[in-house]
Amino acid sequence: MSTQTATSLQAEVNRLRLQLESLQAKDGSEPINVGDYLLARLEQLKVTKMFGVPGDFNLGFLDLVEDHPSIDWVGNCNELNAAYAADGYARVKEHSIGVVLTTFGVGELSAINGIAGAFSEMVPVLHIAGVPSISQQKTKPMLHHTLGDGRYDAYIKAAENFSISTAILTDKATAATEIDRVLTDCITRARPVYLTLPTNLVYEKISSERLKIPLSRLPPPNDPDTESFVLDEVVKLVKDAADDVVILVDACAIRHDVRAEVNELITKTGYPVFSAPMGKTAVSENYERYGGIYVGSISHPDIKEQVESAKLILSIGCLKSDFNTGNFTYSIPTARTVELHSDHTKVQFAAYQGIGMKELLPLLTARLERSAASNVTIPDFSAAVPNEADDVISQAWFWPKMGTFFKPKDVIIAETGTSSFGILDIPLPEGSVFVSQILWGSIGWTIGSTLGAAFAAQDVGLNRTILFIGDGSLQLTVQELSSMLRHKLKPIIFVLNNSGYTIERFLHGKHRKYNDIANWKWTSLLSVLGDQDGTLSKSYTVNNKEELSALLQDATFAKADKIQLVEVMMPMHDAPRALVQQAELSGKTNAYVAI
Amino acid sequence: MSTQTATSLQAEVNRLRLQLESLQAKDGSEPINVGDYLLARLEQLKVTKMFGVPGDFNLGFLDLVEDHPSIDWVGNCNELNAAYAADGYARVKEHSIGVVLTTFGVGELSAINGIAGAFSEMVPVLHIAGVPSISQQKTKPMLHHTLGDGRYDAYIKAAENFSISTAILTDKATAATEIDRVLTDCITRARPVYLTLPTNLVYEKISSERLKIPLSRLPPPNDPDTESFVLDEVVKLVKDAADDVVILVDACAIRHDVRAEVNELITKTGYPVFSAPMGKTAVSENYERYGGIYVGSISHPDIKEQVESAKLILSIGCLKSDFNTGNFTYSIPTARTVELHSDHTKVQFAAYQGIGMKELLPLLTARLERSAASNVTIPDFSAAVPNEADDVISQAWFWPKMGTFFKPKDVIIAETGTSSFGILDIPLPEGSVFVSQILWGSIGWTIGSTLGAAFAAQDVGLNRTILFIGDGSLQLTVQELSSMLRHKLKPIIFVLNNSGYTIERFLHGKHRKYNDIANWKWTSLLSVLGDQDGTLSKSYTVNNKEELSALLQDATFAKADKIQLVEVMMPMHDAPRALVQQAELSGKTNAYVAI
Repeated sequence: MSTQTATSLQAEVNRLRLQLESLQAKDGSEPINVGDYLLARLEQLKVTKMFGVPGDFNLGFLDLVEDHPSIDWVGNCNELNAAYAADGYARVKEHSIGVVLTTFGVGELSAINGIAGAFSEMVPVLHIAGVPSISQQKTKPMLHHTLGDGRYDAYIKAAENFSISTAILTDKATAATEIDRVLTDCITRARPVYLTLPTNLVYEKISSERLKIPLSRLPPPNDPDTESFVLDEVVKLVKDAADDVVILVDACAIRHDVRAEVNELITKTGYPVFSAPMGKTAVSENYERYGGIYVGSISHPDIKEQVESAKLILSIGCLKSDFNTGNFTYSIPTARTVELHSDHTKVQFAAYQGIGMKELLPLLTARLERSAASNVTIPDFSAAVPNEADDVISQAWFWPKMGTFFKPKDVIIAETGTSSFGILDIPLPEGSVFVSQILWGSIGWTIGSTLGAAFAAQDVGLNRTILFIGDGSLQLTVQELSSMLRHKLKPIIFVLNNSGYTIERFLHGKHRKYNDIANWKWTSLLSVLGDQDGTLSKSYTVNNKEELSALLQDATFAKADKIQLVEVMMPMHDAPRALVQQAELSGKTNAYVAI
Repeated sequence: MSTQTATSLQAEVNRLRLQLESLQAKDGSEPINVGDYLLARLEQLKVTKMFGVPGDFNLGFLDLVEDHPSIDWVGNCNELNAAYAADGYARVKEHSIGVVLTTFGVGELSAINGIAGAFSEMVPVLHIAGVPSISQQKTKPMLHHTLGDGRYDAYIKAAENFSISTAILTDKATAATEIDRVLTDCITRARPVYLTLPTNLVYEKISSERLKIPLSRLPPPNDPDTESFVLDEVVKLVKDAADDVVILVDACAIRHDVRAEVNELITKTGYPVFSAPMGKTAVSENYERYGGIYVGSISHPDIKEQVESAKLILSIGCLKSDFNTGNFTYSIPTARTVELHSDHTKVQFAAYQGIGMKELLPLLTARLERSAASNVTIPDFSAAVPNEADDVISQAWFWPKMGTFFKPKDVIIAETGTSSFGILDIPLPEGSVFVSQILWGSIGWTIGSTLGAAFAAQDVGLNRTILFIGDGSLQLTVQELSSMLRHKLKPIIFVLNNSGYTIERFLHGKHRKYNDIANWKWTSLLSVLGDQDGTLSKSYTVNNKEELSALLQDATFAKADKIQLVEVMMPMHDAPRALVQQAELSGKTNAYVAI
């Protein structure tokens, strides 16, 4: 019996024990508030921060949160930013989840775009909505925060569209099992879940027995026969490819927790490794067999060549969204592809449901050997700072320049726009974590997610948190700078001031007024939003190459021991190569003409 | 035949003509873009401003908006604020609607709380979501802003919960009728509607014939027999009450456009008139027969007495939410009540569906006469500035003091919290408009709604726009101050700095840290968010009674010829009487204990 099968069996044993235990739970043994039960589960999941905004219907629960010894309440400025923060926290803190607490109607609906983004990008977030008591839900009085027509279920109906599962708590008898069910879904399927907590249940006493068995994050085990068959098929393809194999890592390698397994695979085999944009830093970009970012037709030519000419592509955790694939321009025939996913495998044209990569990868690694491919030349993934005649901070110069500033274990966050495209070509250091929202693409997300990511970075011992955000995007969510200050986080925030929504300009309306924005005093924001005496933060404007270079060399700046904001003056109609090309492709498919 | 029946018939004639015309529409006569057809309808509805945020999928339509001669594009900082602005615009600009344009997924979901609030409070808002082309909706590629699992209908499903009707445009053949249908629903039912505009339809040419017939905002006519019966019943009750009748106006008197009809009724009969909080300024608070605000058990004793002892209460457009009724403490027996609504009438215990007040009110007025009740004493509705020993700006002093500052036709906006409760007891001048969100109660709403209201005030020749908002609430939506500056609006914004979420403190957690907020430099906000050289705005801090009094006396300040922000320093644990009482009542029903 392989070790993997033993692990699967053990997981099954644990699950069965949990079921038995809950049936055997003795009433009254160490009773606990429902609210505290929930917090205990979150603590088990290593949650240290809860995001959200106080509101009627969640205040009673908030007392428990504020009093909790290891979970801190982070009062955000608004609920959308809070949901963004929970998302960012979960991305950086592997094996934990993000949690956002809102209030009935007004709060939860404000957060819903943040939850939808987490759903889209497979981020485990728990959304707790404090709601009226069960008796009020039955009698449906016209409370504030209701729709006035008696529909108390409208928010649940909305939430269901963006949650992998929901728990609508109705009584103490089922509260614990419901909480456990929905948290288990959250961690095993890496998507948001929604839980309503009625005011009258928060302090109901229930048994704490179930807490003795931690929740299991293991996915259901692969069927052994199918798995065995699949392995044989894959190994056969590898042999047929005479080891001309390339590995392509993508979003779900991170989101579904197989980075360690992937690392084993790549170091054993030595296959060339590339990454889709959403998989950037799934594998260390410092790894000697790593060749850079593959993004369909807009890849660098040598990367495009190497990936598309390989006899076999092992695609791990792919998420083929438009911006992640150069607008769907992968030129990789299905016949030459094996796709590994969290819950299915594709071998050429055959799909094998229920065969997940968490278990499959180690078995595959065991069957493969260091190959001749380990000697194949990899394109040099580097980004030299170009020599430009003038002193303007161009996009083409800025990103490679920033590449010289990053350090191992930095958390590097790039807002949708010039940032998320510009950063792609820049190798990030060992142990660094790349954070962006390339599929959902909600501008302004990164201010909230930076807050969450910075907290998580503290928890897991990462280095600095560095954010790149455009001026247009910053306007959507600016107030959350206040929370960063309030909690003494120390991100470095580069604000790209190029007077407008640049990604929109390149999609459509290059010279349109609607792509302009109001000009703010960017370098006064931190002062106004909480740095009362000017000692908690530092802000800079860099107008040209010389000023930026000098700042990056400044040891105090680099040390990042207080929150810092850098306004970077950049030309209006400049954009990274990748954005220009992507926008051109997207623009063609956005048929603003009769078809 | 009564004039009312003639009007109803005429409306029916118009509707029939419209149907005929659409059937007879000749192809190719003055073809018009679908996008321009929509804008033409909005122009007919006297829309002058469109709120929203540019995003992929709406940029092609945005070109038409930007080029439109009479509809201005207002690019907001984020979509929630944009929806709030559309709501505020619609409230102040009677007989028009608010319009907000967002993009697929990320934009529309960010706005949804704003739409839900408009739904709840019966405000006609059109939400246009720019969406991918019809062919993309069929093939469902994994575009940015999608959920990654192929569900292209998830946002529609969410929106349906908060829209009175939806139009999902699919082809040019039905575009005009769909647009007309949903706009008609919006204006006749005074609730939000949702329309998706695919990129490929914006420039499709369709006939413009239908535009010749304006959309009708008249509700369906009352059935004559039922109406006649109801009138007799009501008149009988009035006679039985020996004219001891009191009129209570509420939200829907405003929302469903019967202020003129109500005015006729009250001036003819001379009955004492009171208002629920949500009906404040439906009737002029300057009217000599107007006695003030009735709010159940927390009303002023003489108002409570007069309303509750009347033999008959004519309730016009009531919306009996918790904060609107002193937590449901109306002590008015059903047997003594007649309720008039937009689509039904209640006479004591009998309900008459389909009998709307728009038609009924004039008929009722015709049957009534000036009564002895016109001599009954009305409580004196005034708010004397109390003599307080110290110099602290207390809630009890602040609101009456502000009462001395208001002028006729001012638009006065009060955020949920101390403001919305504190302002209730203050008589507002002739022609002024009170704006608040007492049922939905989403804090921060007023920054967005003030933007919209200020635009509308310009359109309809109202006076100054004056906003009262708490420091906690301002943090949620602060960026929209930028849009006010950018469009040279001139509201006066009073920021009540009492260090936290005061309404929450009084609901629960008075001394809890979660009710604290970060302290911002409130008087620097306008400078940082767009007043680059300091000439476009003015900000003040008033620390005590003397400073506030002096400011209110300052003629330049009062003239409000530029945007102004006043930080008002107030004690942390002080609240208006009405809020204290309401919070106490609400707190009892929020059972944070086992029941």
